[in-house]
Amino acid sequence: MTLKKQDLTIGDSYSELIVEDLTRTQIVQYAGASGDYNPVHTDEKFVTEVAGYPTVFAHGMLTMGMTGRMVTNYVGDGQLTYYGVRFVNQVWPGDTLTARAEISAIREQDGGTLVDLTISTTNQDEKFVLTGNATARIS
Amino acid sequence: MTLKKQDLTIGDSYSELIVEDLTRTQIVQYAGASGDYNPVHTDEKFVTEVAGYPTVFAHGMLTMGMTGRMVTNYVGDGQLTYYGVRFVNQVWPGDTLTARAEISAIREQDGGTLVDLTISTTNQDEKFVLTGNATARIS
Repeated sequence: MTLKKQDLTIGDSYSELIVEDLTRTQIVQYAGASGDYNPVHTDEKFVTEVAGYPTVFAHGMLTMGMTGRMVTNYVGDGQLTYYGVRFVNQVWPGDTLTARAEISAIREQDGGTLVDLTISTTNQDEKFVLTGNATARIS
Repeated sequence: MTLKKQDLTIGDSYSELIVEDLTRTQIVQYAGASGDYNPVHTDEKFVTEVAGYPTVFAHGMLTMGMTGRMVTNYVGDGQLTYYGVRFVNQVWPGDTLTARAEISAIREQDGGTLVDLTISTTNQDEKFVLTGNATARIS
């Protein structure tokens, strides 16, 4: 699905289950793809014995990337012009995350239409893990 | 390295070569890790014959993730509270990207110190591919 200009209404929203039961392997895959090998994300011994966390946790940018996939599924590919987030809680192995976008504004600029979205991602306990905003071009 | 409060000066900057000669395989790895399988990033036949691009191109969020790794290398892990970017040009296979952060403000908030950073990522032709802002806690 891709948003079309005639479909736009402020307050409309879209949501997606972006990951179900996040695995440590998926976090390792993200480390490999992004080059971000900080051991807090992948080394159970280091993170529990040295860093003092209960277990490894996801890169904030993995959550940001999975949430961004929901956004591009909503607005269409190559349309996202701005994407900004706050990292509000850790994401742990086993988490199931749902991401949501709501239309907060529709603007005309340079002869085109831009839509502003309010973004949030929550875990299985309804706790926010990420909040943010995005802007996309709409044809 | 990790920024310490006593090191902070507005205008200080840090930069990193974040990827040299980006490969199609690295883009495929990111697709697998993020679950973002849009064929414009991985299917040469589709992207040239149907979508009308010269070749596949990187996910914006791969560039955002690699740039974010530079930011967390600068400010320390788990310190980033906000990260927002504009996608200003496509990133193609073969690109070599350099990401830069500059301290734009230092603020006290809730008894802690926050540093605001201006972020940019350029390709081998000195063309911006991403611009943005980030905020991190500094101890």
